Amino acid sequence: MKRQKREKKIQEVAVSISEKPVIKVAAICGSLRKASYNRGLIRAAIELSKEQIEGLHVEYVETALLPMLNTDLEVDGKFPAEVEEFRQKILEADCCLFASPDYNYSVTPILKNALDWGSRPPNVWAGKTAAAVSAVGGGRRAQYHLRQIGVFLDLHFINKPEFYMNAHRPPGKFNADGDLVDPETKDNLKEMLLSLQAFTLRIQEKC
Amino acid sequence: MKRQKREKKIQEVAVSISEKPVIKVAAICGSLRKASYNRGLIRAAIELSKEQIEGLHVEYVETALLPMLNTDLEVDGKFPAEVEEFRQKILEADCCLFASPDYNYSVTPILKNALDWGSRPPNVWAGKTAAAVSAVGGGRRAQYHLRQIGVFLDLHFINKPEFYMNAHRPPGKFNADGDLVDPETKDNLKEMLLSLQAFTLRIQEKC
Amino acid sequence: MKRQKREKKIQEVAVSISEKPVIKVAAICGSLRKASYNRGLIRAAIELSKEQIEGLHVEYVETALLPMLNTDLEVDGKFPAEVEEFRQKILEADCCLFASPDYNYSVTPILKNALDWGSRPPNVWAGKTAAAVSAVGGGRRAQYHLRQIGVFLDLHFINKPEFYMNAHRPPGKFNADGDLVDPETKDNLKEMLLSLQAFTLRIQEKC
Amino acid sequence: MKRQKREKKIQEVAVSISEKPVIKVAAICGSLRKASYNRGLIRAAIELSKEQIEGLHVEYVETALLPMLNTDLEVDGKFPAEVEEFRQKILEADCCLFASPDYNYSVTPILKNALDWGSRPPNVWAGKTAAAVSAVGGGRRAQYHLRQIGVFLDLHFINKPEFYMNAHRPPGKFNADGDLVDPETKDNLKEMLLSLQAFTLRIQEKC
Repeated sequence: MKRQKREKKIQEVAVSISEKPVIKVAAICGSLRKASYNRGLIRAAIELSKEQIEGLHVEYVETALLPMLNTDLEVDGKFPAEVEEFRQKILEADCCLFASPDYNYSVTPILKNALDWGSRPPNVWAGKTAAAVSAVGGGRRAQYHLRQIGVFLDLHFINKPEFYMNAHRPPGKFNADGDLVDPETKDNLKEMLLSLQAFTLRIQEKC
Repeated sequence: MKRQKREKKIQEVAVSISEKPVIKVAAICGSLRKASYNRGLIRAAIELSKEQIEGLHVEYVETALLPMLNTDLEVDGKFPAEVEEFRQKILEADCCLFASPDYNYSVTPILKNALDWGSRPPNVWAGKTAAAVSAVGGGRRAQYHLRQIGVFLDLHFINKPEFYMNAHRPPGKFNADGDLVDPETKDNLKEMLLSLQAFTLRIQEKC
Repeated sequence: MKRQKREKKIQEVAVSISEKPVIKVAAICGSLRKASYNRGLIRAAIELSKEQIEGLHVEYVETALLPMLNTDLEVDGKFPAEVEEFRQKILEADCCLFASPDYNYSVTPILKNALDWGSRPPNVWAGKTAAAVSAVGGGRRAQYHLRQIGVFLDLHFINKPEFYMNAHRPPGKFNADGDLVDPETKDNLKEMLLSLQAFTLRIQEKC
Repeated sequence: MKRQKREKKIQEVAVSISEKPVIKVAAICGSLRKASYNRGLIRAAIELSKEQIEGLHVEYVETALLPMLNTDLEVDGKFPAEVEEFRQKILEADCCLFASPDYNYSVTPILKNALDWGSRPPNVWAGKTAAAVSAVGGGRRAQYHLRQIGVFLDLHFINKPEFYMNAHRPPGKFNADGDLVDPETKDNLKEMLLSLQAFTLRIQEKC
């Protein structure tokens, strides 16, 4: 590597160290239910990142309007408008947060549909980092399927911590509005978000 | 077991042996594409069973009209009309044939959506036998996820033969209409259908 | 089917109905640890079947002496003596009970080694029924891998009930000798054994 | 971050850029067979890295002497000597290369045994990068199980390229000594090693 190039790289690193970049997280919910606890986990992640995690910006990305995947809907190399919009939002993000219920021991059709639309060439997920959360312990089964899907999508999932909880086991951890109120669970969620942030910085060579 | 009961059972078995029951197969396609090779495999299975397999009746069950799974759509214990109709057709079948593409190393959202609607209590899949076919070798990854899903759905998959092919490898195995024309592949498909039939008879205690 | 053949079949069925056959279960432990709770579950299954389940005979099959799988050890079509003995015991069984811990989210090397030796042609597992138990909830991950392995081995696993427990969660469910003493867990285990028995009878066409 | 700390970090980065570190790869073979093609792939990786890849050093790590995993063999917090030696070699490596056959749709007992011994606290795999190769296409099934195991071991697998081949499909790609001689396969293997090298540099924050 030539001297000039080296100097430039060093300069860039110096800047990156002083100005920690903001990591943008696209948060996707695997349930369409309004009262979904998994949806509640995303709201909690948005709030936690706003209030307690500098440099991490979590944004909810809607998937309810996506048509069921059918590549016959791609005409002249164009996707339906809702798909284009969804893909654009993923492209703009640095990483992804999937709130993944377990439906019959695997991921939900809602989530798979979003993943598949995003994968249509050019694959918008490629090279991004990712993490998953599940409101019920069984969601881990779905998370392992999700991780296998991520191999082809070229998503780099954090290994640890794996986030799951048992929303249905007393005492209640969500309030009547479906918002996460349990302090310990919030701490676990925050720890996971910090791990995602750190991993993203490493993977992006922004370290 | 009392003598009378035994006699009755023996009588039933004698009847079942002389009059082999017709096994009804609900065939579900994991792709919405019109030209889908997986759809072509189902057409081939229907034709093969009509012409060459006594006692096996394969019927295509449409899933394109099912809304994306959202249990908020269940009102007063009732499903949307399209869902009710779909569930009824599964209930009437003895076993299931899934034509399963591989989308990003797992099952398609179309297929998962149908599986999940059918699983809503009371689970219409329970106790049925099943088999899967894939038009592309990668579909086996989807089949293994499908089998794990089947554990919770209480579907009994045949183990062998596993059916997959490489539709895209020359020479062409489908004609311009997307119909399977390759004799060897047809033989493989027939072998699989016979295995499904035999397994269903065993599982149903109709042996 | 000719009349004579039919008569013979009916006769056989009549006999099978009057004399319920004894189902032989080969029980294999995925842990070498002496104090293993999974080993305790097998002892409990043996005891339960002796005392409470007519027609089911569970026998522990040792796997500790099997060499690590290496097909170079197969000479002139013969297996090492310990392997031959192990394979013979599986051949004599109607079905298998696997006590499967989770080691790092998959099956243990001990269990996989036994499965692989048994699979060497001719595959001794072929066509048998099977069930799995795990002393810790995480064992379910291993069970799903085990089920995928079973597809190739041609093992027919029961779907339900899935048996797992949380041996480490108080109150203690095993005594100081590592024997299962918790009545509720024993009931669950018995229910699983009855399901295995019923499924085996169906699959064997001995119904 | 204080100024001094920043200066130090910048200095370190400058050094790392001028002196590209050597990445040490621990290569583990999932087969004990002498003529194993998977073993041949490791020899090819060692040769390729020596001759064509600056900064990557692949070293074969023996696993044949490890006893079958049994934590009863851990006495006074010490592992058997062979295990200690194996664990030390993994600790010294930056990343891992697994040559993974498919035995009955999952990883081999040999490989799983090595993975499990390494995982005993303190887990020697933690935070390392990894890649897998398979001499037969079916090995991909084993690779997906391996990746799930990697979640708990905290191994970061590269996503792409996935390396597998069909060693048994003519024309022969290995010579009579079991050495890889096919130029295209060598190129694929080299591409995978370069991907592993690049990913390791990113993950290690040595970029």
